[in-house]
Amino acid sequence: MTHEKLRIAVVGAGYWGPNLARNFSTSPDWDLVAICDLDRDRAERVANQVGQVPVVTSLDELLSSDDLDAIAIATPARTHYPIAMQALAAGKHVVVEKPLADSTSNGQAMVLEAATRGLILMADHTYCYTPAVLKIRELIAAGDLGEILFIDSVRINLGLIQPDVDVFWDLAPHDLSILDFVLPGGLRPTAVAAQGADPLGAGRSCIGYLTLPLESGAIAHIHVNWLSPTKIRQMVIGGTKRTLVWDDLNPQQRLSVYDRGVDLGKQSAGRTDRRDANISYRLGDTWSPALPEREALSTMAAEFAASIRSGQPSRTDGEAGLRVLSVLEAASRSLADSGSAVPPTQGDRQMETAR
Amino acid sequence: MTHEKLRIAVVGAGYWGPNLARNFSTSPDWDLVAICDLDRDRAERVANQVGQVPVVTSLDELLSSDDLDAIAIATPARTHYPIAMQALAAGKHVVVEKPLADSTSNGQAMVLEAATRGLILMADHTYCYTPAVLKIRELIAAGDLGEILFIDSVRINLGLIQPDVDVFWDLAPHDLSILDFVLPGGLRPTAVAAQGADPLGAGRSCIGYLTLPLESGAIAHIHVNWLSPTKIRQMVIGGTKRTLVWDDLNPQQRLSVYDRGVDLGKQSAGRTDRRDANISYRLGDTWSPALPEREALSTMAAEFAASIRSGQPSRTDGEAGLRVLSVLEAASRSLADSGSAVPPTQGDRQMETAR
Amino acid sequence: MTHEKLRIAVVGAGYWGPNLARNFSTSPDWDLVAICDLDRDRAERVANQVGQVPVVTSLDELLSSDDLDAIAIATPARTHYPIAMQALAAGKHVVVEKPLADSTSNGQAMVLEAATRGLILMADHTYCYTPAVLKIRELIAAGDLGEILFIDSVRINLGLIQPDVDVFWDLAPHDLSILDFVLPGGLRPTAVAAQGADPLGAGRSCIGYLTLPLESGAIAHIHVNWLSPTKIRQMVIGGTKRTLVWDDLNPQQRLSVYDRGVDLGKQSAGRTDRRDANISYRLGDTWSPALPEREALSTMAAEFAASIRSGQPSRTDGEAGLRVLSVLEAASRSLADSGSAVPPTQGDRQMETAR
Amino acid sequence: MTHEKLRIAVVGAGYWGPNLARNFSTSPDWDLVAICDLDRDRAERVANQVGQVPVVTSLDELLSSDDLDAIAIATPARTHYPIAMQALAAGKHVVVEKPLADSTSNGQAMVLEAATRGLILMADHTYCYTPAVLKIRELIAAGDLGEILFIDSVRINLGLIQPDVDVFWDLAPHDLSILDFVLPGGLRPTAVAAQGADPLGAGRSCIGYLTLPLESGAIAHIHVNWLSPTKIRQMVIGGTKRTLVWDDLNPQQRLSVYDRGVDLGKQSAGRTDRRDANISYRLGDTWSPALPEREALSTMAAEFAASIRSGQPSRTDGEAGLRVLSVLEAASRSLADSGSAVPPTQGDRQMETAR
Repeated sequence: MTHEKLRIAVVGAGYWGPNLARNFSTSPDWDLVAICDLDRDRAERVANQVGQVPVVTSLDELLSSDDLDAIAIATPARTHYPIAMQALAAGKHVVVEKPLADSTSNGQAMVLEAATRGLILMADHTYCYTPAVLKIRELIAAGDLGEILFIDSVRINLGLIQPDVDVFWDLAPHDLSILDFVLPGGLRPTAVAAQGADPLGAGRSCIGYLTLPLESGAIAHIHVNWLSPTKIRQMVIGGTKRTLVWDDLNPQQRLSVYDRGVDLGKQSAGRTDRRDANISYRLGDTWSPALPEREALSTMAAEFAASIRSGQPSRTDGEAGLRVLSVLEAASRSLADSGSAVPPTQGDRQMETAR
Repeated sequence: MTHEKLRIAVVGAGYWGPNLARNFSTSPDWDLVAICDLDRDRAERVANQVGQVPVVTSLDELLSSDDLDAIAIATPARTHYPIAMQALAAGKHVVVEKPLADSTSNGQAMVLEAATRGLILMADHTYCYTPAVLKIRELIAAGDLGEILFIDSVRINLGLIQPDVDVFWDLAPHDLSILDFVLPGGLRPTAVAAQGADPLGAGRSCIGYLTLPLESGAIAHIHVNWLSPTKIRQMVIGGTKRTLVWDDLNPQQRLSVYDRGVDLGKQSAGRTDRRDANISYRLGDTWSPALPEREALSTMAAEFAASIRSGQPSRTDGEAGLRVLSVLEAASRSLADSGSAVPPTQGDRQMETAR
Repeated sequence: MTHEKLRIAVVGAGYWGPNLARNFSTSPDWDLVAICDLDRDRAERVANQVGQVPVVTSLDELLSSDDLDAIAIATPARTHYPIAMQALAAGKHVVVEKPLADSTSNGQAMVLEAATRGLILMADHTYCYTPAVLKIRELIAAGDLGEILFIDSVRINLGLIQPDVDVFWDLAPHDLSILDFVLPGGLRPTAVAAQGADPLGAGRSCIGYLTLPLESGAIAHIHVNWLSPTKIRQMVIGGTKRTLVWDDLNPQQRLSVYDRGVDLGKQSAGRTDRRDANISYRLGDTWSPALPEREALSTMAAEFAASIRSGQPSRTDGEAGLRVLSVLEAASRSLADSGSAVPPTQGDRQMETAR
Repeated sequence: MTHEKLRIAVVGAGYWGPNLARNFSTSPDWDLVAICDLDRDRAERVANQVGQVPVVTSLDELLSSDDLDAIAIATPARTHYPIAMQALAAGKHVVVEKPLADSTSNGQAMVLEAATRGLILMADHTYCYTPAVLKIRELIAAGDLGEILFIDSVRINLGLIQPDVDVFWDLAPHDLSILDFVLPGGLRPTAVAAQGADPLGAGRSCIGYLTLPLESGAIAHIHVNWLSPTKIRQMVIGGTKRTLVWDDLNPQQRLSVYDRGVDLGKQSAGRTDRRDANISYRLGDTWSPALPEREALSTMAAEFAASIRSGQPSRTDGEAGLRVLSVLEAASRSLADSGSAVPPTQGDRQMETAR
């Protein structure tokens, strides 16, 4: 079955827009029909890189076109909400760079608006569409890891200290969107505790730790850090059956699945010896699945098209974006309260109730 | 200058005792004069390994000897206090396997007793005497790292689930004693927050995260975990001038010092661009110091002897052991209070006041 | 001092030509004035990527232009000689993709022609202009490694089996040109021995080992391999003072300099014990110099311009290209003679005599 | 079925003897009944370490005992032959530290003597009994790698420069015995070429390269080096189906099996494009088998006992030792002949003919 191509415009020609433009312009599913930015020069530079796409400087003008099915928003986070709402009102499908919005309440409004109008709202959680993360999701869904016991994610590097957001809002959306993507049922922590430090006096946390107890008794933990000269991007996912290690900086062995673990048997009566709990260790093989080479954004573009055509939500739909937002907001509250555990903002659950 | 050898007995012939016995028996500073254990067979096995040392099964008998200067205690933690107190009362110097005691109050009593009697009380914080940790202490003391910004320590592995202690009390003493050793002035966090998880239903935390804000605005964080099939023992110490990475599982390059970092300059007037804070990055060389090969316990044995002879506290004296205990106790309180930040038990500061 | 830009055309729009075009087009030293290829479509694709550069399909036409100072040749190896000779005859400077020519005798003729006409002939030994290799050359020249004792280079990967050249001619030019670049005085082996294997029956060696004794008593050895699923690009350079390891696949620590080695003292009289030669080992620090991020081809383009302006040979001049060729030809002769050691083809030395 | 224990004496109490003594003394198959060395003090030190084993200083006396089934020889290589011959003449089974003898002809005589007398002669090729090498042998025998295409072994380190043997005789026996163990049919190269270098003027090769073409068209290559400050012990075994990498210094992933490779299809007619041979690449998963923790020498001791009881040759019998010797001798000849390819000394094949 072949489809007519869908028509999309990229709104925002700054850091991320050129990547979106390049991938939509080469996608078999999409025609890239415009680049929209208030700054015409910037828009034209992007347009030239992808082969003379028309440039528009007015969002009103762009959205008034009947020859447009969707827009991809790559503008600063605080503008996601008004642009998306205007596009949805104009009947356009929307994909938004992470984070979905600058607040849970704005994100909720966007999700409601899309639902009401029967339009697709998708979060561009790019990492989720990398071959490694797609494989992790697949392995967990197939039960290969068993029950999840813990997830430990480290994302540290010398990073630019942002003048407007702390390290949680800058880096943790990657980890949170990945957790939301791979955990069956999405990321639904029972609480959020955030510890931060600003040892250079930058005015906001440059080092951050996020602890997320999960309903199952498992725990997720995220370490984000702008001040580390060693770059680490590693996630360990421990399960009752196997444990997975994702080392994103090792292209020769990105994923390793260890067929090892601890089993806790029934406690036998009368045990007293200190080192003698009823535990068995499995020391099995390690396995590293081959991963295809495919750019994540091209998979994301295909998913957005498929979602529009089927009417089904994408795997990183607005509600996924909302769950990420609700943890980020809770992290800010925990931080303001000396790191105490706070409940996540009830974004998507209120919504579920509201339906 | 040559000394008469000091005379020591090892009390406890279980897991750690044989290591102490071997190192004291080959030390130029010490004569190992007895192995003491209630279980004569166990004591004799150790005695045979180090060449026919006398075996004693009664602590009273051991301590009544005039030909004994000191004892090394390697018994279960709950017995450290009574054995040490009895030995100090008998006028013997004491070195105690970590943790110093099973509670801060017991530890305090031991420290006071030793001080009152003019005896040396030392904690066997073995890791501190490894060539790597000695070098880290030296580099920090010399100002090579500048001001400390953050310390991140990971110690994870498939570990035995202990029936009596959680993962904090089992593994974190290593990290805490190292932090206490390398930080100028010792480990004095302003608060302690502990998050734990017991996803297998073992009855105690098998995964633990410890966050320790320091007075300087820096932050220390420790991840201990019994359930990880990948073994990681890594500590990153970020400073204003350089950053150090200690990878204890890489014998070919255990320490790396990165001459890199972030400098935060003065904010110039009128800055508006989002990615343009006044930051400079240094991308300098990496340097990996050569480390001598020396067993940590033999250095510890030499330090204990030097401390007794000089009357000066060792680098891991009773108060160091107390500072570790006070964090562990606070971690337990934090854990019981949903991970909220609690003050460390004021072990050694009360003591300082009491003098 | 500012210069008028020099004018260059790229001849050959296949695999390597686009890289040359991109770098010359963005160089402050150069104006890229034409892309020349018999296949107009291919040339236009390259021309478009670098911003509408004119396309020429006739070499005669290209070389007849007075507005051209130089050409960069990126055509198949067998055509390097006729194109370069024609360009030199037309008074143009020439840089040639490796290998310089398809035979030492053709290479010699090119070098002579350029010398006679006072034109610059340069080999595009791209690897030599990477920050890592530039640093290695600098360290050796400064005496940091002492006398070179051995060089061991491994370049293995799953590689395309070429229908026209064996693995020596495909991959070893990289290693040989690097050796020529970093060794003071260039690569001048006393003999060449080549061992190859074709276990799949591809019709030519897919695995190759090259042994090059040097005049100093040192030895260089190169392992090239198309059939290895693990990718290794590593060079170890052992010296009397220090040893350098270049791991090109480790971006976080590409160069390591080990301040370690073996010293052989004077043999004392009457030694008989087997393990007691008069040897001392140094176990010093390891040091990893920071490397700038700069694309090798842009440095090469700058060097070509500087060479033309100064009239001085570049660091990878025609004679360097010739030394590489002479080893490759000798390798083919050794291979045909069961791997026996043969003298390198006397390309550049005849030339030196001829002067 | 339980056996009476066999009775063994260790001859030679130098570097390797204590390891043999320790393993035979703790083996369920063996009683260690004596330590024999001309130097009584040295013998007693070893005897004490393994619990008061009797010491003998006369080989004649040792071999005259009826209560002795076998001896393990750990004396200098030049004495292997006379000691083994005397022991065989006395009706004792013999296991010999590598290399089997100091010449092929002596080795042959030993093999013949054992065969004539119906006694077991075994080479202590310890590496072959490590869990990693046992697994490699098993994988190759099961066809998991397909046909072997190449074997590349690197064994480099700062090593003691031996006053009596070069780096080939010192280190290559490890690689050669491993190749002999894992290759079906044993190591039978069609030729041997050896290149060495002595850049420090030590009087013998300190760096060595050994090339061994195999009958199948495959090639084996060994790099041994005393002068490298970086320690590498790595073997790559490339097969038509899979490729195996053994990194002996990575305890966390010693063996990796890559389900990747190159397939060379039939050349289709009329192909002209340079990069278009009929090749397919497989990029499959990587797999790292779990290896048991067991000391190699204890497995060797068990194999020696089993071989004596069954009358069947061990997996590292005298003929295996002889094949290793024949390559080492050929390497010396090649080295003396400028690295030309020479045939291996026909040790074991003459023997086969002689039967």
